[in-house]
Amino acid sequence: MSIDETASTNDLIARRKRLLGPAYRLFYEQPVQFVRGEGVWLYDPAGNAYLDAYNNVASVGHSHPHVVQAIARQAAVLNTHTRYLHETLLDYAEKLLATFPAGIGQIMFTCTGSEANDLALRVARTCTGGTGFIVTETAYHGVTSALAELSPSLGLPLAKDSHARLVPAPRSAGDDTGEIFARHVRGALDDMKKNGIRPAGLLVDTIFSSDGVFADPAGFLRPAVEAVRAAGGIFIADEVQPGFGRTGEQMWGFARHGLIPDLVTMGKPMGNGHPVAGMAARPEVLAEFGARSRYFNTFGGNPVSAAAGIAVLEVIESEGLLANAQRVGGYLRDQFRQLQARHPLISEVRGAGLFFGVELRHGGPAGTPAASETAAIVNALRERRVLISAAGPQANVLKIRPQLVFSTEHADILIERLDQSLQALDKT
Amino acid sequence: MSIDETASTNDLIARRKRLLGPAYRLFYEQPVQFVRGEGVWLYDPAGNAYLDAYNNVASVGHSHPHVVQAIARQAAVLNTHTRYLHETLLDYAEKLLATFPAGIGQIMFTCTGSEANDLALRVARTCTGGTGFIVTETAYHGVTSALAELSPSLGLPLAKDSHARLVPAPRSAGDDTGEIFARHVRGALDDMKKNGIRPAGLLVDTIFSSDGVFADPAGFLRPAVEAVRAAGGIFIADEVQPGFGRTGEQMWGFARHGLIPDLVTMGKPMGNGHPVAGMAARPEVLAEFGARSRYFNTFGGNPVSAAAGIAVLEVIESEGLLANAQRVGGYLRDQFRQLQARHPLISEVRGAGLFFGVELRHGGPAGTPAASETAAIVNALRERRVLISAAGPQANVLKIRPQLVFSTEHADILIERLDQSLQALDKT
Repeated sequence: MSIDETASTNDLIARRKRLLGPAYRLFYEQPVQFVRGEGVWLYDPAGNAYLDAYNNVASVGHSHPHVVQAIARQAAVLNTHTRYLHETLLDYAEKLLATFPAGIGQIMFTCTGSEANDLALRVARTCTGGTGFIVTETAYHGVTSALAELSPSLGLPLAKDSHARLVPAPRSAGDDTGEIFARHVRGALDDMKKNGIRPAGLLVDTIFSSDGVFADPAGFLRPAVEAVRAAGGIFIADEVQPGFGRTGEQMWGFARHGLIPDLVTMGKPMGNGHPVAGMAARPEVLAEFGARSRYFNTFGGNPVSAAAGIAVLEVIESEGLLANAQRVGGYLRDQFRQLQARHPLISEVRGAGLFFGVELRHGGPAGTPAASETAAIVNALRERRVLISAAGPQANVLKIRPQLVFSTEHADILIERLDQSLQALDKT
Repeated sequence: MSIDETASTNDLIARRKRLLGPAYRLFYEQPVQFVRGEGVWLYDPAGNAYLDAYNNVASVGHSHPHVVQAIARQAAVLNTHTRYLHETLLDYAEKLLATFPAGIGQIMFTCTGSEANDLALRVARTCTGGTGFIVTETAYHGVTSALAELSPSLGLPLAKDSHARLVPAPRSAGDDTGEIFARHVRGALDDMKKNGIRPAGLLVDTIFSSDGVFADPAGFLRPAVEAVRAAGGIFIADEVQPGFGRTGEQMWGFARHGLIPDLVTMGKPMGNGHPVAGMAARPEVLAEFGARSRYFNTFGGNPVSAAAGIAVLEVIESEGLLANAQRVGGYLRDQFRQLQARHPLISEVRGAGLFFGVELRHGGPAGTPAASETAAIVNALRERRVLISAAGPQANVLKIRPQLVFSTEHADILIERLDQSLQALDKT
């Protein structure tokens, strides 16, 4: 950065701290300012282009004109709420529910993934009569009071009388992954029973994003879900990160596991940046909640959000983005594997579609987590103008999540600069 | 309605029920469908214009071009999140904080009022070490798990071990209103103490919207807030409904009470329909939360939301909407009082600025609540194409909340049709 840029960045950082307070965090040792986005590129004030291999919100590409036009058009005509009738929301609900397997027949709309997950907790408690939830040890499900407790990745201590139970993420990737994960879940259920806690449900991100990205072998979730259901709980698939084609083969991450969840929550890429989220449900799971509670979300399911959501589905379909995620994802996976052959620091390459966890350890898969090297790579790539991040309990997993419109040419740029960053690291 | 319109409405209602499930509610015995909005008018598919005297989200007028253009312009350029630097959010934060009294110096951004209130609970718990919250008996603060418990207007039973305490709304409107309300609050604090619950805060909508709209005498909140602070709790002003000029004289409802809250939550009209909300704070109240927790809200404070928020503040200023709310609000209040003189069913006219509670009782202020008549008036006005709603524990308060751009001509239409509806009711 030039001296001017640094001064301007430092000024913005100081203003942020003063105005937004102490709870906000910026990415990177040298935080970055963006002023424009187009497709897979983000631009800083000097006009430098950064390849976005991280942000899954603008999943069909930054400032996608089809989505922008849909928002602008509907905002100019009408933006009200769900206590009046509006056809666009129902068209969207139909189009969205058509992407789910039979059985998932209803959808409720919120503005954020946090609101969707929080609503799922309320519905799960009502339909099961239980209060105990099982989540993974480095889970992230949202920022509300109830979800912060179920998001150990936030680093907040669990209250002694908490009804939450934490289980290790399914990280083995072997034939017995499903059985091992189910064993932990059964252990949590037993512990609830011992403490007089009735189970409400198992809540997992179906690709275990914050745990470090665990996707294989497809199907491993089934035994755990069976155990929870046998104990009277339900299965909530948190699709906020894996949903909307992220895993390539299918629209939803749970589909890789051959499961039909009881509740499915979604958000981030749903409106390509417009705040829209939702919770799909088996109608029988929703019935009791509807009998006891009414639900209203002021902005949730408004006509502009519905128009944005429809536009995103149209782009996914018309641009063939599921097939693209699968194809470019496969290409990228091969490239990561080739990098792994040259850089022993890469201990494992995991993922599905266009969602990767590239784990860094000293001394192979059983070695020491390379957390500081992971941070160094993330920052080195930022200097080379490629955006990724880190995940996992030891923060030693490169979290790579390019937009669905990524091409093999973009993949080559990412791989080349990652290779350079790894080489530079080898030399230090 | 024509037979065709009824058929189309019934079809939409059936689709809604099938797709959105049992928890959603529609307004009116004959639900209404809108397809277009402009200023204070909403239009049904047949082109009929409805005068909007209820919706405080599109507070500067439906589809206000200045706000629509700001959203369209920013969405076409960039929509990211708060982990990168972006100047527009800081400009917005500065502009917004300038509307607060000295002492309220920081703001955090969410997407909905529910998220803002839920965040306020987390911050209050952290800075006080307490868990007990005091709310009014018919309060509404949001839909998250934690807020549903603090929103008795939802009709859900309070758990036996709940740390929430309910107090009657300050409905007396006399010299002793503040003392009576403070007595109830002190009673709740005493009860917490008896049960080993440490107080976290008093959370009130500063115009008590869902309780039935209580605004007078200005200043009545002070003794209760003093009592809560003396007991170690903080004061959270829920400005989701009264905020942004609704009460006329000032931007914020708490200002009428001569108070500086510890936390202030806001939402609904903040983006004129775009999902943006926030929590303003005294920095000293936020410090401990920031030291222990990081906060990230994927869509919260994104550049499009910031652009929408700035545009709303610009419209409020350039169109002189505070002064308008005060002037037209005063005119409307006089008109309601004149109606009251002719219709004894109106037992009280309350409110501030452009937010009114018109209470209906048989036999004067101490008489029987006229709930069915209130519902009849709301529905009769819908037939006369004027939109209002009802509030209060007995649902006998007409909730009238015209947009800030209401003129005296619009007020005359509202009054005329309300008069007609009351006359028609007298005859039945």
